Amino acid sequence: MGAPNPALLSLNTATTKKQWGLAQAIEGCARHGIRGISPWRDQIGQMGLAAAAKAVRVHGLTVTGVCRGGMFPAPDAAGRKAAIEENLRAIEEAHALGAQCLVLVVGGLPPGSRDLAGAREQVKDGIAAILPQARAAGVPLAIEPLHPMYAADRACINTLAQALDVAESLGEGVGVAVDVYHVWWDPQLDAQIARAGRGGRLFAYHICDWLVPTRDLLNDRGMMGDGVIDLARIRSRIEGAGYAGFHEVEIFSELDWWRREPDEVLAACRERHARCS
Amino acid sequence: MGAPNPALLSLNTATTKKQWGLAQAIEGCARHGIRGISPWRDQIGQMGLAAAAKAVRVHGLTVTGVCRGGMFPAPDAAGRKAAIEENLRAIEEAHALGAQCLVLVVGGLPPGSRDLAGAREQVKDGIAAILPQARAAGVPLAIEPLHPMYAADRACINTLAQALDVAESLGEGVGVAVDVYHVWWDPQLDAQIARAGRGGRLFAYHICDWLVPTRDLLNDRGMMGDGVIDLARIRSRIEGAGYAGFHEVEIFSELDWWRREPDEVLAACRERHARCS
Repeated sequence: MGAPNPALLSLNTATTKKQWGLAQAIEGCARHGIRGISPWRDQIGQMGLAAAAKAVRVHGLTVTGVCRGGMFPAPDAAGRKAAIEENLRAIEEAHALGAQCLVLVVGGLPPGSRDLAGAREQVKDGIAAILPQARAAGVPLAIEPLHPMYAADRACINTLAQALDVAESLGEGVGVAVDVYHVWWDPQLDAQIARAGRGGRLFAYHICDWLVPTRDLLNDRGMMGDGVIDLARIRSRIEGAGYAGFHEVEIFSELDWWRREPDEVLAACRERHARCS
Repeated sequence: MGAPNPALLSLNTATTKKQWGLAQAIEGCARHGIRGISPWRDQIGQMGLAAAAKAVRVHGLTVTGVCRGGMFPAPDAAGRKAAIEENLRAIEEAHALGAQCLVLVVGGLPPGSRDLAGAREQVKDGIAAILPQARAAGVPLAIEPLHPMYAADRACINTLAQALDVAESLGEGVGVAVDVYHVWWDPQLDAQIARAGRGGRLFAYHICDWLVPTRDLLNDRGMMGDGVIDLARIRSRIEGAGYAGFHEVEIFSELDWWRREPDEVLAACRERHARCS
């Protein structure tokens, strides 16, 4: 297989969140010839939704996702209702930005709870509750299965198979975001990517790398090529499953990339995307 | 369901490895009424195999496992052969100690490799290579699926389903060690525990807890009750699958339990086993 199409590179703004706000990230993408961007909601809020929508339009960027909805489980009904309302606002923002999807980091155990199965039910109920508005707004919901090390505190959906079970049970408008960092280890990876493709549920593809050693559970992701994930192989499966969308670089890196000049980071994203993905 | 039988508590010596050698751990177990022990091979080596075997016999302890065999993948044939020879020595030690199983932490990617599927094949080949000697020695081989966060550097078998696929393909004498720390998040957990039980492949059960937050990928496990794992629920599934063996406490804890008085640690193991497992 050949190198990836550089026109399919997208920047998830978490990658430069310590250096840049959203306006700077949009301008940075334009400057570096990066044609996609995926903003986080805190940055959208800081820039202002209308200004953000205008800036991406002016620069002709594709909004490959909005990060993030989700975080459904809560200790009580009021908490669950508040989460659903927050997700409805996220859908509005994703719609206003013309985003290709709203990424769902579904949430973990409610504080004090050990009921993982219950949290998973709450997630399913939460997505079902927001799905009508998402469909009406034309915003696909992309469940992002998170690595099992985040099951307690970030997302109790931890494999592609599990995410697809939920998506298929809810019907149209729900799919998955495949982030290599979360799923590269999964013995079922190839089969589940194929399943997602068959069902038309491959909504987003996120890349970075798994470092050895990994020094922090959350903020020690690597740039493509610096770790052990066979990115070209996974991309071939993704493309083989019919996905022709963007490749979104999302790197949380307290010790390395968040400390660098952001223009250097974007240049590295381009170079590594071409050479190591 | 009732509280666990205190006679089924076992101490994995990793739990006190910073404070005690094996001789002290054996005496500690005897002193605290802990009837099972699972020693690590470095500690067996330091004490001497004959002395260790004699001490566990004198105190009437059950050796619920030897930690550990495995680490099969290597960059070349010489490395793989050396790993197999090391595993054969581990089988001899487990036999000499009358251990209920040899725990296999199968190994991750060879240095410089991104070929996860290849590493998994090497693991299967390695277990197949040592299986005749294990059967001859009467030492069951317990594949321990490790948490996916260790896929790169410690074990490329990361779910119970995957471990059972390997075990079933190899036939008699190969099963699994279920460690709650590694598998608690798995959406397939209940089904796979039942499958292991049906096949007579539930060889060991390890307990501890998952802390929130987890501050270190390797050495921040919690004592039962201090984290989010529903231990009583998992035990009910394990027992429901026909397992009547020991509950082995294995806690790596740089910041907490390795800094405490070891007699305090063993007392906590007993109390938490009874109250929170």
